[in-house]
Amino acid sequence: MSNQIIKPRTLKGFRDYLPESMIPRERLMEVAREVYRSYGFSPIDTPALEYAEILCGKGSDETDKQMFRFIDHGKRDVGMRFDLTVPLARFVAQHGNTLGMPFKRYHIGPVWRGENTQAGRYREFAQCDFDTIGTRSVASDIETGLVIFDLMKAIGFEGFKIRINNRKVLNGLLQKNDLGDHSVGVLRALDKLAKIGPEKVKAEMIQVANASAAQIEGVMRLTEIKGSNQAILQQLEPLCQGHDLAEEGFVQLKQMVDATSAVGVTDANLVLDVSIARGLDYYTGTIFETFLDDLPEIGSVCSGGRYDNLAQLYTKQEYPGIGASLGLDRLLTAMQQLEMIPPVKTSADVMVVQFDAVNLNTYLQIAASLRRQGIKTEVFPEAKKLKQQLKYADRQGFGAVIVAGQDELDQGKLSVKTMADKNQVEFPLTETNQELCDWLNEKLG
Amino acid sequence: MSNQIIKPRTLKGFRDYLPESMIPRERLMEVAREVYRSYGFSPIDTPALEYAEILCGKGSDETDKQMFRFIDHGKRDVGMRFDLTVPLARFVAQHGNTLGMPFKRYHIGPVWRGENTQAGRYREFAQCDFDTIGTRSVASDIETGLVIFDLMKAIGFEGFKIRINNRKVLNGLLQKNDLGDHSVGVLRALDKLAKIGPEKVKAEMIQVANASAAQIEGVMRLTEIKGSNQAILQQLEPLCQGHDLAEEGFVQLKQMVDATSAVGVTDANLVLDVSIARGLDYYTGTIFETFLDDLPEIGSVCSGGRYDNLAQLYTKQEYPGIGASLGLDRLLTAMQQLEMIPPVKTSADVMVVQFDAVNLNTYLQIAASLRRQGIKTEVFPEAKKLKQQLKYADRQGFGAVIVAGQDELDQGKLSVKTMADKNQVEFPLTETNQELCDWLNEKLG
Repeated sequence: MSNQIIKPRTLKGFRDYLPESMIPRERLMEVAREVYRSYGFSPIDTPALEYAEILCGKGSDETDKQMFRFIDHGKRDVGMRFDLTVPLARFVAQHGNTLGMPFKRYHIGPVWRGENTQAGRYREFAQCDFDTIGTRSVASDIETGLVIFDLMKAIGFEGFKIRINNRKVLNGLLQKNDLGDHSVGVLRALDKLAKIGPEKVKAEMIQVANASAAQIEGVMRLTEIKGSNQAILQQLEPLCQGHDLAEEGFVQLKQMVDATSAVGVTDANLVLDVSIARGLDYYTGTIFETFLDDLPEIGSVCSGGRYDNLAQLYTKQEYPGIGASLGLDRLLTAMQQLEMIPPVKTSADVMVVQFDAVNLNTYLQIAASLRRQGIKTEVFPEAKKLKQQLKYADRQGFGAVIVAGQDELDQGKLSVKTMADKNQVEFPLTETNQELCDWLNEKLG
Repeated sequence: MSNQIIKPRTLKGFRDYLPESMIPRERLMEVAREVYRSYGFSPIDTPALEYAEILCGKGSDETDKQMFRFIDHGKRDVGMRFDLTVPLARFVAQHGNTLGMPFKRYHIGPVWRGENTQAGRYREFAQCDFDTIGTRSVASDIETGLVIFDLMKAIGFEGFKIRINNRKVLNGLLQKNDLGDHSVGVLRALDKLAKIGPEKVKAEMIQVANASAAQIEGVMRLTEIKGSNQAILQQLEPLCQGHDLAEEGFVQLKQMVDATSAVGVTDANLVLDVSIARGLDYYTGTIFETFLDDLPEIGSVCSGGRYDNLAQLYTKQEYPGIGASLGLDRLLTAMQQLEMIPPVKTSADVMVVQFDAVNLNTYLQIAASLRRQGIKTEVFPEAKKLKQQLKYADRQGFGAVIVAGQDELDQGKLSVKTMADKNQVEFPLTETNQELCDWLNEKLG
């Protein structure tokens, strides 16, 4: 073998996660799993590779171009999944009868897109989705909102707004104003309101739908609806009256507001926003977006909505459903900026200094006694100089170190020092080290 | 769009995980993470795709042929990782200075191999590795053994044997018997002892190393060493005497037995086996294998060992280390066979029946009060017939259902029924539902 060194590097658009970034990432995924499970969502997983035919099913040129696609050893045309929704559709079509309905699943895993890289865009990133399949009941819409609320709280956010709307209201009002045939163009114009202002939105409506002044006014009234959720409902009701679809959407919105507030979710965190449309083809009912009060500019951190027919490409069976996706990368960026992530490189709480190699077994016993009490404990592997070991402990971010030299051990004692306030305390060395564990549990929380 | 249905199917060698198999799988990974963290191992992740050049670095024809390899959009020659060891080596070479040593990491993730499929072999499977890099201290060898012990216990096994040996003892004894130049062939012969018996092993030694009767006897003595760990050490010591490498290995084995027994790991779970060699090129010191007492035939469920130079293909810096890998698929197969996996399709404990839609908000409140007490609770999304909802609850494997019709709610009550013993009890409906939660926590454990 030659001594040529291969340069260690990752592919463009791909990332290594070092411990300081992987620890909060894992924690975030765990919090999400815990919340999903608390509502009865169950985990599934699907392959990274699928038949290209299945992944392309929906076939926009955009996704086709972005997919990592190749011919495998068996001459099959395969691709790496670019989201978790297409695999879910294929999964439900394939296993629907085994699964039984309703089917509530969460799925956390990597997806791949060969798109052009730019700030914050990667070719490999994780998605974190949950969906309820097989029911049209508004109870699932309500639950989806509650899950998003619990997710945000459990992650540690207080200031956030879940914005909800219902596509039935939007489509109903367009139909009511004889703009049903131009809904895509009109909603696309409406979606730009915050960016380009009402005058340009109106101009675009004329351009795409040849809309009359009365039609424009009928639609623009939506954008003038403001206030508390109850106030919005009051203003919205007369607009929807007399049109079945709009009324149906209105009733669902009202039910969502009533039910979520019954379990303590207030206007501070869940707000009706009757002008959001969120994607134009896919959703058919309730839609969600979630913005952070402190960082609205990073965009929605949890979005989703209701759809009528998930798996139509793969089965004749109809599968309605509703779901949303937690934006892990955005949330981590936000948490970084808001200093919600402690800068640690270790999963453990405490480090036991290896003061001298001859007492290694005692250090291992101390560590084992702490672990039995749920305190994560590392023993430094070498009897290096104390200063070097403390430097390591500091760099890694341990909460405390335990030091016990020969003299202390002879006296049946050990010392513990907290890293933050350099508080040093002596404890008796015992089999369970109960006193020490109690103290550490209190100090390190 | 045509109405042609695309047949939903997965690629050969790839699997979907339905909830009933994904729930225990996730639990196993969580247990592993908890144990790794309790010793101060930190998580990392690396890309699924790497430069083929980096993955092929080691370049056996076998792995090259098995790798999913293709040319990406940017004309790069890329491959999907086929293990987590090559990416670790690249990672350490690339980030070594940032990481600081010792570096203790765990890595759980999928890998891909396009090998021929057979029973229990898949083209996509998860690995679950932990390693300590940057130290030659036997303290890390000891710790690796303790981690394996804690893993097996935490997963739920009592009857298992971690077999340990040290390649220095093996290589030292071969050198002592002037067989150092033929170590690969001789160890390969020795490894077959259990399969082919001592006579055929001896014949093979003559064939591969032209070994004399004295040389063969010198090596075969190893295989005659039996008994408790202490007895084995006593028999092994004289064999190693007078050879530096063998003595070094002996001392390490003795330290491992002493230290692990000091923290309560007995011969029942950790046994010296001086005849195992475990792979011929990679390992240079302590080696581990782990077998289940009840299912030894499925092979080792956790293996690993010490190596001198992890990243030599990617850097001139030397990185010694030690690690092991938990065999998730084998463990799950074993747990299935040993009936250690409860057959449930839900993550939740309790289901609230939606008796009538008009009381949905009350059901949501009940569920929220249970969740606040840590009880995972699903509300059935539709007001279907009670019988249908109970059938769903039974199929999913909920521990209990809560039923509250109009009459009960009017009386400020609700009923809970455990699914296993059909025990039905009434509780007062309150804001916290404390009494109910206490009862459920006790009943469902």
